[in-house]
Amino acid sequence: MVKAKKFIFAARFDGLPKVTDFRLEEETLPELKDGEFLAEAIYLSVDPYMRPYSERIPIGCTMIGGQIAKIIESKNADYPKNAIVYGSFGWRTHTIYNPTSPEAQLVKAYVLPSFGKLPESLGLGHLGMPGNTAYFGFLEICEPKEGEVVVVSGAAGAVGSLVGQIAKIKGCKVVGIAGSDDKCAWLTRELGFDHAINYKTESIAEVLAKYAPDGVDCYFDNVGGGISSIVINQMREFGRISVCGSISSYNTPVADWPKVPILQPAFVFKQLTMKGFVVTRFWDKWFDGIAQLKKWTEEGKLQYRETITNGFENMPQALIDMLQGQNFGKAIVKV
Amino acid sequence: MVKAKKFIFAARFDGLPKVTDFRLEEETLPELKDGEFLAEAIYLSVDPYMRPYSERIPIGCTMIGGQIAKIIESKNADYPKNAIVYGSFGWRTHTIYNPTSPEAQLVKAYVLPSFGKLPESLGLGHLGMPGNTAYFGFLEICEPKEGEVVVVSGAAGAVGSLVGQIAKIKGCKVVGIAGSDDKCAWLTRELGFDHAINYKTESIAEVLAKYAPDGVDCYFDNVGGGISSIVINQMREFGRISVCGSISSYNTPVADWPKVPILQPAFVFKQLTMKGFVVTRFWDKWFDGIAQLKKWTEEGKLQYRETITNGFENMPQALIDMLQGQNFGKAIVKV
Repeated sequence: MVKAKKFIFAARFDGLPKVTDFRLEEETLPELKDGEFLAEAIYLSVDPYMRPYSERIPIGCTMIGGQIAKIIESKNADYPKNAIVYGSFGWRTHTIYNPTSPEAQLVKAYVLPSFGKLPESLGLGHLGMPGNTAYFGFLEICEPKEGEVVVVSGAAGAVGSLVGQIAKIKGCKVVGIAGSDDKCAWLTRELGFDHAINYKTESIAEVLAKYAPDGVDCYFDNVGGGISSIVINQMREFGRISVCGSISSYNTPVADWPKVPILQPAFVFKQLTMKGFVVTRFWDKWFDGIAQLKKWTEEGKLQYRETITNGFENMPQALIDMLQGQNFGKAIVKV
Repeated sequence: MVKAKKFIFAARFDGLPKVTDFRLEEETLPELKDGEFLAEAIYLSVDPYMRPYSERIPIGCTMIGGQIAKIIESKNADYPKNAIVYGSFGWRTHTIYNPTSPEAQLVKAYVLPSFGKLPESLGLGHLGMPGNTAYFGFLEICEPKEGEVVVVSGAAGAVGSLVGQIAKIKGCKVVGIAGSDDKCAWLTRELGFDHAINYKTESIAEVLAKYAPDGVDCYFDNVGGGISSIVINQMREFGRISVCGSISSYNTPVADWPKVPILQPAFVFKQLTMKGFVVTRFWDKWFDGIAQLKKWTEEGKLQYRETITNGFENMPQALIDMLQGQNFGKAIVKV
């Protein structure tokens, strides 16, 4: 009999989540039925989306999230023992799963494609959901052209750090916005961003006007709020905005969301386009994205960095740290 | 010698324009040169765009604007005497113009296509710039599908009143937002809108939730500001927003623009698209749009209404009245 540890979503978040909003429980798993496999988590993901999406799940559920797991027992030939899978199994160490069951939805579980010499943990970041979020969300929505100016907010996060590097591969001038001098230094010295702005200490409007005197062509927005209004008002005619996230508002009740000057005048007079997206819309070409990202990484064109928290029991704290911007690159938990 | 009357843009607007911001002058016109024509204004247009665009012209210029004029003398075979033209000649009664001169820009002047039995004044509205603004700005940016819910703000204006009717032709359910009960009654009783909301007396959020319980698919935005934030937050997944204008902010200095809760969360979670446009981007198919609008009007599928002010000397007041929403449909001035 296998015992699974799992975190229950125990209390609705009030602002920033607290460790006590989660409850660690144990569950004895039943025997496998035909079509099922049993997976043991190796790495679990903490991502910004967990904050807003948790508002849609009932109290008492297992907390939502993805993981890289090893199949340790299987009654499904497509998911053999020892295969490494990505699965949206939630915050749990062991999972019994039937990928053909009616409950199994889009992007629920897949056997990882070969990562070659790259670590399997990248299946949660660089070569997984955040990777494709950056790849498709930037290229298909911003449609960057060589020589254009690209601004990325949340630039030191899992998605933002990739977007800036992809923009460099495409020949753009890249300005990242992040929340510490260390992050800014990482962006410009190691990842090849042309410029980085520390939004906590610098005036974005002034510095951006210097870095992009003719305006911004593409803005990849992870944060929303006042930062985005400043960038949008400094865009060039026919600029494109990809809205990936709005982390500035995730810990704030709707009634207290940041209020910003209206954006419509900029949209009309500069003929801007803004498009929000959820990465699952690109599911039909998911593995094409991962293959390209893997190739660029192997060629040394894409750097990555992971902020790893050890111990399944530290998942709540890892989420809280990430929501406060303490991570460089992808935040993950090693069981 | 022909004497032209013209209005000079005499003082930069501070909030709502005042009659004293304009100065009426007379100018004696020279003899025509080869390639030129002399046009006499019949109808002049007052449009919302004049407020923001006036900020881009120097004090002392002739005020900007379009007119329907008759050519009363010509040394250009393509623009013969007695032809009726649309021209962006500014606020003036008589104009000498060379359409092939380097100064003549896009959409500067064209001989009106035949309007059949319809009045030539429609060349300023229904069958002119506002017509194509509605036609292309709605159909190409919102891409409405039969059965979808369309919301139009500024619905009783020249553009908004057309957008709602075009949406009905396309089989949509249409909700208009306007500023008086009389306007709302016009929209639903005469123009065929399904519903109308008086934003001055009704709660848009509550009423819209009743008219569109499953959310809004398309929003054609003429106003910006708080009204638009409410509508955008009640949109359905994959909704499309066409930003045509932002009249709620035109008379307000940038520093005092209405502040609204950020829109990014709605954009991400509902995967919305918002696109601002200026109608000149559709110039290559300008006359296709006018031909279709004319056909629908002749078939009785499109109604129009004009708010006509008499007398060239009343142009400033006509602009001020229109900016305060006193017009039904297109606001024009008859010389």
